[in-house]
Amino acid sequence: SVTLFGVFDVSISGYVNKAEDRQFPTQGSATTRRTVLTNSAYHSSRLGFRGTEDLGGGLAAGFWLEGAVNNDDGSGRAIGGGMNWQRRSTVSLSGFFGELRLGRDFTPTSYNDGVFDPFGNNGVGASAVGQANGKRSPGRFQNGFAENRTHIRASNSVSYFLPPNLGGAYGHFMYAFNEAEKYKPAIPGATDGDGALLIRPDSQRTGRYIGARGGYANGPLDVALAYGESTIADDFFDGTTTVLKLWNLGASYDLGTVKLMGEYSNAKAVTDRAHPLHRLAHMPNPGAKGWVLGATLPVGPGIIRASYSRIEYTRLLGATPEPKASQFALGYVHNLSKRTAMYATVARLSNRNGAEERVGGPEHLSSMNGRTLTPTTSTGYDLGIRHAF
Amino acid sequence: SVTLFGVFDVSISGYVNKAEDRQFPTQGSATTRRTVLTNSAYHSSRLGFRGTEDLGGGLAAGFWLEGAVNNDDGSGRAIGGGMNWQRRSTVSLSGFFGELRLGRDFTPTSYNDGVFDPFGNNGVGASAVGQANGKRSPGRFQNGFAENRTHIRASNSVSYFLPPNLGGAYGHFMYAFNEAEKYKPAIPGATDGDGALLIRPDSQRTGRYIGARGGYANGPLDVALAYGESTIADDFFDGTTTVLKLWNLGASYDLGTVKLMGEYSNAKAVTDRAHPLHRLAHMPNPGAKGWVLGATLPVGPGIIRASYSRIEYTRLLGATPEPKASQFALGYVHNLSKRTAMYATVARLSNRNGAEERVGGPEHLSSMNGRTLTPTTSTGYDLGIRHAF
Amino acid sequence: SVTLFGVFDVSISGYVNKAEDRQFPTQGSATTRRTVLTNSAYHSSRLGFRGTEDLGGGLAAGFWLEGAVNNDDGSGRAIGGGMNWQRRSTVSLSGFFGELRLGRDFTPTSYNDGVFDPFGNNGVGASAVGQANGKRSPGRFQNGFAENRTHIRASNSVSYFLPPNLGGAYGHFMYAFNEAEKYKPAIPGATDGDGALLIRPDSQRTGRYIGARGGYANGPLDVALAYGESTIADDFFDGTTTVLKLWNLGASYDLGTVKLMGEYSNAKAVTDRAHPLHRLAHMPNPGAKGWVLGATLPVGPGIIRASYSRIEYTRLLGATPEPKASQFALGYVHNLSKRTAMYATVARLSNRNGAEERVGGPEHLSSMNGRTLTPTTSTGYDLGIRHAF
Repeated sequence: SVTLFGVFDVSISGYVNKAEDRQFPTQGSATTRRTVLTNSAYHSSRLGFRGTEDLGGGLAAGFWLEGAVNNDDGSGRAIGGGMNWQRRSTVSLSGFFGELRLGRDFTPTSYNDGVFDPFGNNGVGASAVGQANGKRSPGRFQNGFAENRTHIRASNSVSYFLPPNLGGAYGHFMYAFNEAEKYKPAIPGATDGDGALLIRPDSQRTGRYIGARGGYANGPLDVALAYGESTIADDFFDGTTTVLKLWNLGASYDLGTVKLMGEYSNAKAVTDRAHPLHRLAHMPNPGAKGWVLGATLPVGPGIIRASYSRIEYTRLLGATPEPKASQFALGYVHNLSKRTAMYATVARLSNRNGAEERVGGPEHLSSMNGRTLTPTTSTGYDLGIRHAF
Repeated sequence: SVTLFGVFDVSISGYVNKAEDRQFPTQGSATTRRTVLTNSAYHSSRLGFRGTEDLGGGLAAGFWLEGAVNNDDGSGRAIGGGMNWQRRSTVSLSGFFGELRLGRDFTPTSYNDGVFDPFGNNGVGASAVGQANGKRSPGRFQNGFAENRTHIRASNSVSYFLPPNLGGAYGHFMYAFNEAEKYKPAIPGATDGDGALLIRPDSQRTGRYIGARGGYANGPLDVALAYGESTIADDFFDGTTTVLKLWNLGASYDLGTVKLMGEYSNAKAVTDRAHPLHRLAHMPNPGAKGWVLGATLPVGPGIIRASYSRIEYTRLLGATPEPKASQFALGYVHNLSKRTAMYATVARLSNRNGAEERVGGPEHLSSMNGRTLTPTTSTGYDLGIRHAF
Repeated sequence: SVTLFGVFDVSISGYVNKAEDRQFPTQGSATTRRTVLTNSAYHSSRLGFRGTEDLGGGLAAGFWLEGAVNNDDGSGRAIGGGMNWQRRSTVSLSGFFGELRLGRDFTPTSYNDGVFDPFGNNGVGASAVGQANGKRSPGRFQNGFAENRTHIRASNSVSYFLPPNLGGAYGHFMYAFNEAEKYKPAIPGATDGDGALLIRPDSQRTGRYIGARGGYANGPLDVALAYGESTIADDFFDGTTTVLKLWNLGASYDLGTVKLMGEYSNAKAVTDRAHPLHRLAHMPNPGAKGWVLGATLPVGPGIIRASYSRIEYTRLLGATPEPKASQFALGYVHNLSKRTAMYATVARLSNRNGAEERVGGPEHLSSMNGRTLTPTTSTGYDLGIRHAF
């Protein structure tokens, strides 16, 4: 009753990332490049164990344990390189009511980034939207949003899935505990300079996630809307809480010869300030919005994939006009069998106004001889094999 | 011939731990609380591989590899969060003579803490005895015993088990190498202020374990006695060696409607001092003694569990009267099948005289506005699902 | 289609390593010793998953994931003790043309060290040749070669194997990417004291491996030659690159009653200096050369194993005469079944002229009361069980 499963995806991949001196263009550009043997450029490499048990009366229990494997060097993704199970680690109860799922899993808001991207958010072709939402905004902007640890997956979560028999409608809700310690009275004695109690009790909120996704899939159409809130920072002593509010809408339509798909995504890092003085001096709420349009085209035993995507950062202090990036990706997957495929992808991304996006590889150089460099293009390719079992 | 097995246990658990200002009781108390999605509150979550081979002539060889899985967040228990196999990792030879087992395994002295506790030493209901023996004694007491790394399991061990056909008698012996380097002559030239050789050769002893357990199980009765010595500290230059000497006695009796069980445990950290001067200035040997009384009561497809346990620290310098804690726990397990169960447990522990025990969750606060706080109660609950395969 | 496999090998092993004061021999010697429960003294302990898929037309795809297990303590080999898959982690395509294999695997140059050593490069009997080539040369010599991380295995590698149907001829080629970042223009602005550009572009080479092995196996004869280059160090600012160039030749001949085998190995760390001034002041290229002669003798269900091996370090500055070590090993393996064996091995190694080799265990002491000690003998034994599945 236990299924052992996995994917091993290996590719030779190369990246060339350019930056230019905009003040003295005659100085030319500086490039960083890297050629690697890597993993997961088509499908994410993994090893897993899963099983279900029929409890009778329509009820079933199940478990799912799945971890990433860096099959290019044999390491796992834990600190130090050990194997862990952080792709998915859940226990489920399911029945007529749907499914209750507990543990670590994808967030509702991360689904659309993968499902409606022809490149499934993997490899050099992964859309700029999916890459940007989980990332810090460009580091040079002081109010950029911090990294979102619950962008793709959340630990310590409780999820509920609607049952599958709803005529094409589907839905999914998740709440993830942040497991913070709470003190009462707060941290006693911490007052500000005026002798007033600076902090509120129970203010450790970072790590919490709440989100939901609903959609409709029937015949050639699939459309889904998701909304989620990730608490990405809070400052106990300043009384501030920053929540990344993210929504996205994706759709695909299968015309038979070609399947079209796209996604729009909008993220904003909203900071709540409990202390009146802080509210006066507040900074704008930085954000990111983007979209991807793509298509997949079956060709014999293979499939051609193409996408165009854009990402734009908004309300970053000192960034006028606003940093943005656009990317074009093209690829071909040749299926040798259901389990084994060879693939090739090329992608080229252009940064504008200080955006620092990449299709992969090392960071853009940021300075040369003491002069500032501005990131421009990022180009890359993947040439690989994916084997599943 | 290889069996893949595991347990995934997930629960929503909450803890509230209080501490009071005993000098100014009007100041009230301070609480720390935490609500989590956690694992192993009923049975320890794990993934394992095991197998046996019939060698003919009654002989068999076998292996067992089993590691903990934190299925709430997908991590393992190695430093950095990787998966390891430290629940059990052994190679065995067995036959008419019994079983010889080499590697990492439970110590003989840890069995009774689990077998004779209705809560199996897991979750908020785990008896105060099992929790306390492996722990440091309260940190504020200068002669408290150090953490015992070989309390529950020992690496690098050689175990011998009696064969099963002895009319109900069973027995088990273990020796664990500490794998220390030994020097001859010791570390040459290390003398004390008087020019005398301060240290003895071969004095690195920390990590060694030796212990045994014997019992009798027949019909409704099961009774077992265990004794073990864990070398928990030695100081090469002072010529001191500290051995935690632990014995415990457990028994259960199944009345049919209800099964009664209990354990008494006594631990003492004995420090041997090789140097005459150190013997004069020695401190008392700190210890801990405790007991648990419990019962399990089958109710239809479920089982009610209850226990009362106490732990008392002895001979701690500056602790008069002696720190102690008592705990009451009550739970219900509802079996959906042999492999899947839902469960609920509540527990409440009361500390006296400075003991700092908890049923789980964050530590008791120790100070507030510069005033010392004394731990009082710890309350918790587990509400979960266990799925085995 | 997935095979779960493994080896668990556990032994009680002991080591005694001596060092002498050569200036004042009457002061006697200093020994370090250790007794342990360890793993992999006969065959390397491991856990693995592998599978192949028939793609039709003579083509096949396959994967292999295999990691070391320290079954004496339940840890893995990642930093922090987690499990990883660094024994082998590959994806393959094979057919009439041979096999293309991508990921982490043994290097071609490491095969002969194992295949032509009666002790398979494991345990106290592992030949001095295999041990020395991958190691730093004795630390006291300033031009000794650095540790070779690609001696036994290489990550990020592309391998090609000849097909098996070549009348006994076999061959194998590997290239491993070092995945370094490359900058153009190099690191801009880095000039030496004369204002000249000190470094060359694209000079980060450490980690690269290229090697090949070819042989012939037919009837009682097996002979193989291997050559490889591991880039073990480069200094970006000095313009130096150090490549460990290694070749070895091994052969075995099965006389029926006894199988004879041997290997010769020669390693040299060659430093290329781009800057003319550095070429003038260069130091000699240190090296190591060694050989092993051995035999295996079937005796009923068991096998006797014996070997004599030598290693000599060459061109180390300040080492005249040259450091060398010789080792004798003798063992017996008793097969209880195809999968389970018991074994015993003893080995004794003698160091001369400052060599610091060991059969295992703690390092030789290097000083006593401020006087320098010179390593002499290292003696050890393994007494264990190996169980495979």
